[in-house]
Amino acid sequence: MEEIKCIGILTSGGDAPGMNAAIRAVTRAAIFNGLKVKGIYRGYKGLYTNEIEDFKTENVSNIIQRGGTILKTARCKEFMTPEGRKVAYDNMVKAGIDALIIIGGDGSLTGARIFAQEYGVTCIGLPGTIDNDLYGTDTTIGYDTALNTIMECVDKIRDTATSHERLFFVEVMGRDAGFLALNGAIASGAEAAIIPEFSTEFDQLEDFIKNGFRKSKNSSIVLVAESELTGGAMHYAERVKNEYPQYDVRVTILGHLQRGGSPTANDRILASRLGVASIEALMEGQRNVMVGVQNDKVVYVPFSKAIKNDKPIDRDLVGVLRELSI
Amino acid sequence: MEEIKCIGILTSGGDAPGMNAAIRAVTRAAIFNGLKVKGIYRGYKGLYTNEIEDFKTENVSNIIQRGGTILKTARCKEFMTPEGRKVAYDNMVKAGIDALIIIGGDGSLTGARIFAQEYGVTCIGLPGTIDNDLYGTDTTIGYDTALNTIMECVDKIRDTATSHERLFFVEVMGRDAGFLALNGAIASGAEAAIIPEFSTEFDQLEDFIKNGFRKSKNSSIVLVAESELTGGAMHYAERVKNEYPQYDVRVTILGHLQRGGSPTANDRILASRLGVASIEALMEGQRNVMVGVQNDKVVYVPFSKAIKNDKPIDRDLVGVLRELSI
Amino acid sequence: MEEIKCIGILTSGGDAPGMNAAIRAVTRAAIFNGLKVKGIYRGYKGLYTNEIEDFKTENVSNIIQRGGTILKTARCKEFMTPEGRKVAYDNMVKAGIDALIIIGGDGSLTGARIFAQEYGVTCIGLPGTIDNDLYGTDTTIGYDTALNTIMECVDKIRDTATSHERLFFVEVMGRDAGFLALNGAIASGAEAAIIPEFSTEFDQLEDFIKNGFRKSKNSSIVLVAESELTGGAMHYAERVKNEYPQYDVRVTILGHLQRGGSPTANDRILASRLGVASIEALMEGQRNVMVGVQNDKVVYVPFSKAIKNDKPIDRDLVGVLRELSI
Amino acid sequence: MEEIKCIGILTSGGDAPGMNAAIRAVTRAAIFNGLKVKGIYRGYKGLYTNEIEDFKTENVSNIIQRGGTILKTARCKEFMTPEGRKVAYDNMVKAGIDALIIIGGDGSLTGARIFAQEYGVTCIGLPGTIDNDLYGTDTTIGYDTALNTIMECVDKIRDTATSHERLFFVEVMGRDAGFLALNGAIASGAEAAIIPEFSTEFDQLEDFIKNGFRKSKNSSIVLVAESELTGGAMHYAERVKNEYPQYDVRVTILGHLQRGGSPTANDRILASRLGVASIEALMEGQRNVMVGVQNDKVVYVPFSKAIKNDKPIDRDLVGVLRELSI
Repeated sequence: MEEIKCIGILTSGGDAPGMNAAIRAVTRAAIFNGLKVKGIYRGYKGLYTNEIEDFKTENVSNIIQRGGTILKTARCKEFMTPEGRKVAYDNMVKAGIDALIIIGGDGSLTGARIFAQEYGVTCIGLPGTIDNDLYGTDTTIGYDTALNTIMECVDKIRDTATSHERLFFVEVMGRDAGFLALNGAIASGAEAAIIPEFSTEFDQLEDFIKNGFRKSKNSSIVLVAESELTGGAMHYAERVKNEYPQYDVRVTILGHLQRGGSPTANDRILASRLGVASIEALMEGQRNVMVGVQNDKVVYVPFSKAIKNDKPIDRDLVGVLRELSI
Repeated sequence: MEEIKCIGILTSGGDAPGMNAAIRAVTRAAIFNGLKVKGIYRGYKGLYTNEIEDFKTENVSNIIQRGGTILKTARCKEFMTPEGRKVAYDNMVKAGIDALIIIGGDGSLTGARIFAQEYGVTCIGLPGTIDNDLYGTDTTIGYDTALNTIMECVDKIRDTATSHERLFFVEVMGRDAGFLALNGAIASGAEAAIIPEFSTEFDQLEDFIKNGFRKSKNSSIVLVAESELTGGAMHYAERVKNEYPQYDVRVTILGHLQRGGSPTANDRILASRLGVASIEALMEGQRNVMVGVQNDKVVYVPFSKAIKNDKPIDRDLVGVLRELSI
Repeated sequence: MEEIKCIGILTSGGDAPGMNAAIRAVTRAAIFNGLKVKGIYRGYKGLYTNEIEDFKTENVSNIIQRGGTILKTARCKEFMTPEGRKVAYDNMVKAGIDALIIIGGDGSLTGARIFAQEYGVTCIGLPGTIDNDLYGTDTTIGYDTALNTIMECVDKIRDTATSHERLFFVEVMGRDAGFLALNGAIASGAEAAIIPEFSTEFDQLEDFIKNGFRKSKNSSIVLVAESELTGGAMHYAERVKNEYPQYDVRVTILGHLQRGGSPTANDRILASRLGVASIEALMEGQRNVMVGVQNDKVVYVPFSKAIKNDKPIDRDLVGVLRELSI
Repeated sequence: MEEIKCIGILTSGGDAPGMNAAIRAVTRAAIFNGLKVKGIYRGYKGLYTNEIEDFKTENVSNIIQRGGTILKTARCKEFMTPEGRKVAYDNMVKAGIDALIIIGGDGSLTGARIFAQEYGVTCIGLPGTIDNDLYGTDTTIGYDTALNTIMECVDKIRDTATSHERLFFVEVMGRDAGFLALNGAIASGAEAAIIPEFSTEFDQLEDFIKNGFRKSKNSSIVLVAESELTGGAMHYAERVKNEYPQYDVRVTILGHLQRGGSPTANDRILASRLGVASIEALMEGQRNVMVGVQNDKVVYVPFSKAIKNDKPIDRDLVGVLRELSI
């Protein structure tokens, strides 16, 4: 393996708060360790269209607190074809890039894995997604911020939800993972969460109506994970109208605002630690791993493991939610 | 007119941030001036069901910063009938209440007006609504907070809206008034607002597409006032899909979270000033007026004027929005 | 008077939230109206050191929500001398700038006035200061944000201040004006404010102890305006230790964090309106005026008036604060 | 050991955000499991003065999001004497309380330990302190919120700190532990942290000036942990004035606002989990342990361990901070 002198950095997939903190950390740690840095715009698309720029310390000044990603992100159909990846590889070589740091979720790491296999490119992944659905890391960059955003929104909804015997369904993101819905429900004092992990096990609405929606409460808030498996908040609102017409139902779909906002301390610290660790990993000769965190220690997770496995949800939390919603 | 020794206070209609600050101000100003105070729960319903409590200084401690209303609010069908109002009046007399302070919007003041006419009850109204749609006051309690909530949500949406040539329609409240949508658009740097005031004048979507949605921009955000006159955000998203299929469209409906949250400084100060002024108004012998603010001075507005007139929107702001969205 | 084809824009003095929103509005309104725009860095210093850049629409993209000023601000001793202003003027002519838009406070407008008199330069001022101490405008860009920042800080302090009979002095900015302290006290539910406007009239601490600090309260919070006239929070803490040793005293000096943060809706809307209005003023042939707002209408105020006069504080607010702190 | 039928709950020591979430969780989990609950006001003082109240589910409604503690907290000199503890014990027996749940820091758990030893009282502790200085738990209730508060304050300070070559010292809490200062510095993108853990090892100011304060930066922010070991921010500002007079120095002492504010998602979830776990611990026959969390699992830590041991700081974070402040 040749020595690495220059890295390229890109963000890919859905954007997540803390991606800028990660870009900053990767860039500065690389420069601190004597490497050159190239910023690649719009994810893999920028590799294909050759949107590549020199990055200095100043390029990442004053961005740690900003949501979104200064490198932007985009889908790239061309990168899904061998021809497209050839163009991307040629551009990368031309730019003098010896290794790639990819910040993104499941799909982004899958892209990195294929690219690495085809061209022997050294890739290091950082888990950047609000959904927290990557195996091998306890948490992902953006998750804590999205969780707090959801909580603050539900706090506001609860302010106004104390007059009638109303049932609010609040739909949150999660892409087939219930982390945001379940933890968001506990954090906001909601009465229940409906999550994809349980969708085949039992009827979560019926369970909630039986156990949770009590007459002693003025109002109830249920968080629903956006997922084909749950059907989403509108589905449950329809069901209530049909099956429990005595309840006054409201729906709020939080939508894209969950992706934005200034990152929390946890997300910035995680991004900073993982950014520094990604450069250490490169210097140690690691390749084709995601740098994650387990039990507060940095770990390297092979792409194949991070992508292929489902991350289990802590079922004890369901018990916590139930005890506290009485 | 007899001397007033005891007031009753209630919040009615949709809740608004700052209602608690108003309850606190009315209560303390009344006690400061030697009056007794009774808190009436759930708006006019509490008068009907006799949910009335003595209020001391301590009842309103540490509530200035809280969203919602500690007195709660509810609809009351019974109060819409002469028989219901008779019951309410009897309860009021029984409780020793000489005058009512009503915090609420259009419908709440209409109720106060009828009640005052039928029973000669002394009523003072405070404008409490996020919609800012009461005539005779420059601003209403709750409006500034809702405006900031909308702005913060759109800030987050914009964080994530910079990668594709996307068109976001964000639906905000307003109840047939465009204040939140138009000012929210200026404050958040959105590209346009679609508001009910203009719905019969011209096609606001067509106007925006022609003038505002430029290819040089990565993304555009349009705020749409929730209203039958506009049709709401979904209506425009549908139209774009049919008429301008080249654009990638997304919709977010902010919903009930706009009603909640800790009030801003402006809303707390307004509520405090108007609360104090409502007691002054009573002591001066005023009755059946809404206490509002015009050009930063407290004014008394007869109920009939506050309710019946439409508050005009400042059309210059449309020009400001257009110049700034280039 | 020659036609104006190119404007220069600068921010000067203490920075204030909303300055970026103003820079954005001035730039876009100018371009919308066919003018060229040059950004001048570090206030008058950038005129002297020739730090001047072409500004396009893109230079001000995505800055409306950011605190501070992208044009930065600095003190410039050289601009206080005739020789320095000569250099500045020559640079301005060389850059093709026909008129200056200055965003800043008292000192900044004084500089503009002298410069305009000496060289016949067309200057338009925008009131940018958190202190709200400019005459001729009801409010200044940055004031509403600072007021909300103070309120949120005091909300937090109050969370923790309920156990002991403690007296907290919280020092806020204001530069010899009590707007932030007095309105901040009302907004945060503090018990009193000590402001420079009253410092020669009566002993505000004694007045507060007599009227406001009651045994029935667990804790009291007093906002103190930073000023030589008041002596600041530490001065009052010392006095309490000596004169009222029975009270347990704490001091918090909020300091520079009051200058930062994302601007509120009000500050962004004000900055947007005034920015657009400053270009209109130029096109109408106005010069050497500050563009302000009175009774929600844009007004032009001659520099001499804006600078020389003291803006009076609304004394009714003191009564509001007193009634509500019982 | 007798069966436990009724628990008493109290908060003690410095208050911390999330204490209310813990009170709610303990109360509801106890009721869910068939226990009675008594709320004890003002910490151990309320045991001594017999300020004890029945707690139902409704007593803890709508408090999860509130800072401070509804049970209040106070110092109690009497509880430090055997006579005082005798009175407290008698009151506890009279109220029918079989076990105590204590939410607090080091000193509070020490009190619990002594009380448990003397009277055989069953005590369970929950770690509630912003300082994160309890051994045996990865994090404490309140720490995450304080960390985010510090970060948001420094974000605002940085907004205004970009014009001059200024050195800001920002003093944060920590009570002889550097967690808040070090992690706060990483999260806010500050240039350095001065913490008590290193105070005897090397001169942290000199180290920073040599390594971190570079001419290429417009401004530098250093977080200083409040501690006799560091001397605090003022001490370093004095030193800079004497030893490095070329730098323009500013100081901000964040003070009590770090203790307040609505708790973050993490603090609410932690408090909820530990609250539920404390009742489980009781039901399992545990006593005189602190319920903490290690590697995201609930653990029981004997009081003696939690109190007596110093919790080590992760020294790798110092490296992260150094690499990122270039």
